[in-house]
Amino acid sequence: MMRTRAAVAVAAGQPLEVMEVNLDGPRAGEVLVEIKATGLCHTDEFTRSGDDPEGIFPAILGHEGAGVVIEIGEGVTSLEVGDHVIPLYTPECRECDYCLNPKTNLCQKVRATQGQGLLPDGSTRFSMLDGTPIHHYMGCSTFANHTVVPEIALAKVRKDAPFDKICYIGCGVTTGIGAVINTAKVEIGSTAAVFGLGGIGLNVIQGLRLAGADQIIGVDLNDDKEEMARHFGLTDFVNPSKVEGDMVAHLVELSGGGCDYTFDATGNVNVMRTALEAAHKGWGVSIIIGVAPAGAEISTRPFQLVTGRVWRGTAFGGAKGRTDVPKIVDWYMDGKIEIDPMITHKLSLDEINHGFDLMHQGKSIRAVVEF
Amino acid sequence: MMRTRAAVAVAAGQPLEVMEVNLDGPRAGEVLVEIKATGLCHTDEFTRSGDDPEGIFPAILGHEGAGVVIEIGEGVTSLEVGDHVIPLYTPECRECDYCLNPKTNLCQKVRATQGQGLLPDGSTRFSMLDGTPIHHYMGCSTFANHTVVPEIALAKVRKDAPFDKICYIGCGVTTGIGAVINTAKVEIGSTAAVFGLGGIGLNVIQGLRLAGADQIIGVDLNDDKEEMARHFGLTDFVNPSKVEGDMVAHLVELSGGGCDYTFDATGNVNVMRTALEAAHKGWGVSIIIGVAPAGAEISTRPFQLVTGRVWRGTAFGGAKGRTDVPKIVDWYMDGKIEIDPMITHKLSLDEINHGFDLMHQGKSIRAVVEF
Ligand SMILES: [Zn+2]
Ligand SMILES: [Zn+2]
Ligand SMILES: [Zn+2]
Ligand SMILES: [Zn+2]
Repeated sequence: MMRTRAAVAVAAGQPLEVMEVNLDGPRAGEVLVEIKATGLCHTDEFTRSGDDPEGIFPAILGHEGAGVVIEIGEGVTSLEVGDHVIPLYTPECRECDYCLNPKTNLCQKVRATQGQGLLPDGSTRFSMLDGTPIHHYMGCSTFANHTVVPEIALAKVRKDAPFDKICYIGCGVTTGIGAVINTAKVEIGSTAAVFGLGGIGLNVIQGLRLAGADQIIGVDLNDDKEEMARHFGLTDFVNPSKVEGDMVAHLVELSGGGCDYTFDATGNVNVMRTALEAAHKGWGVSIIIGVAPAGAEISTRPFQLVTGRVWRGTAFGGAKGRTDVPKIVDWYMDGKIEIDPMITHKLSLDEINHGFDLMHQGKSIRAVVEF
Repeated sequence: MMRTRAAVAVAAGQPLEVMEVNLDGPRAGEVLVEIKATGLCHTDEFTRSGDDPEGIFPAILGHEGAGVVIEIGEGVTSLEVGDHVIPLYTPECRECDYCLNPKTNLCQKVRATQGQGLLPDGSTRFSMLDGTPIHHYMGCSTFANHTVVPEIALAKVRKDAPFDKICYIGCGVTTGIGAVINTAKVEIGSTAAVFGLGGIGLNVIQGLRLAGADQIIGVDLNDDKEEMARHFGLTDFVNPSKVEGDMVAHLVELSGGGCDYTFDATGNVNVMRTALEAAHKGWGVSIIIGVAPAGAEISTRPFQLVTGRVWRGTAFGGAKGRTDVPKIVDWYMDGKIEIDPMITHKLSLDEINHGFDLMHQGKSIRAVVEF
């Protein structure tokens, strides 16, 4: 057992508390990772705030990290001490029915325990100094200087990639780019619209640029989002509050008949409907990325589907993490995608609650904690 | 101008009136067809009854016919007198953006005029003996012994195929089999569920058998549907009224985790939701075939899509009619699919209203009028 520093979510709705915690060493199939950097994501805040009905406390949140392997447990063969890794909240065991099916990335191997804030053997490695167990979060718990993660939930990446940038590949980058490449399979010359120009939306946009889309329409209520989005490949900006009449009709006209692909990155079910209906008759595909409030429902007339629109969703960009994440790190290092302009703030662990303030104020795209 | 006999829908909600009508000869790009047989479809009844908000009267309904080319208009090159043809309510011009896109069959070439009950030049060929124009219907108007149809809306088929069977390929057979083959692209070994075991449902089932599905679950409130469905390939019958507890959970268990493909052939938006949610997490695809009442909406939690289910629809089975319908006629003649057991009643034109009575009484799968 070792001690490490972590930001602990002690109870729903409370600020995180930075403290020393106990951390047991890795058991069979597990790996001890020293986290070097971690992003702060809306999903962490969703749980911290108490809005997440499945939130468990106390817990160490964080799911967007990068670090170095410090120790491997019994039977670990794919990683060794010193390897650089990105933890995966969607693991890739390469042997379950889901991993063996090319249509999905939703590995089920450790799903049940992960959802309970536990490692696969049903226990936690973290505890308070008084012995109280602290739950894991999304199988990652990257708001700690050290964490224990299943081997199947670690992507091995090249050692020359900077931790403070590639940590974002652990969530937002892969989610946005993967939605385009893995889920939509956007073709060169396509027309697309992206709803919501936060971090996910920007990554959808650069995914579309990478895929060779001809028209990339961005939709956001905040005009300030346009400039950065254009940097990543946006061709047309639409502020719905400035559109007279029907948004669907406006987008259909702007795209010359409807978009080949639309992406919702807002989590708003009304926007999801607009995104579906702005997809092209006959072949338009609309993809839900955003997470909706508990109980919210999407709806439309079935005629929209019968006339050829397709409604689907994506989780972690449809990426099989151990296989795909290292490739995305390569794309970043090769300059095919950009991450640096999206890392708008750097914080120490002690400043982590300030990072959530920046998120609420809309001042950050991504705040990253460096250890 | 000639005279022919037709069943005319004189006004919404009235029985059809069989009468002599005037028929102008084919103009440029049009073809005069002698209809030899026509099926009676729920869509005809939807319009006849007045439930169809877009219904236009007076009109000659019917869209499920087969016949012989009697005369071709100027510029018609793909057909000649004596050819056997099936009229297509979804034409195939082979030059519009939709025809040139392999993802859709929704040719838009004559869409606007077809929706107004007119031929592409904006006029009708049918009229009452007093000169009152009679509208066309779905571009077909097969409830007439002779009709005029655009060249692009006629599939040329082999001459040895019986009209009283292949007329059904003009709608239900292609819709059901095509939903499986063209829209879902079901793979060998798949698990599937079909909701609604009327004519469309039976054709989905034989499409699934043709595609090599391992498990074909049929869902219907009427136990009497099971026997015929088993004849076409059903492996498991479920009567929802006899299922205790949740239908989705029942189907997920029966299929060993959810269905790879589900098909709604009921037109009921609540059933459409069940069909979506009974699709397998990660990769299940649910396809809407049935036409819902005006204004009805489908809904679900977006989580269903984010976890990998895909919601889509199909019209005319995704078939490009001039290309695909002749192949389906071949499949029928080769014994790869069956139609004969579905043609449960034969009527004369004078008995056509009795055919709708049989439909309402649930006594027919398909009633066919022979001229
Ligand atoms: Zn995240
Ligand atoms: Zn797996
Ligand atoms: Zn029909
Ligand atoms: Zn066309």
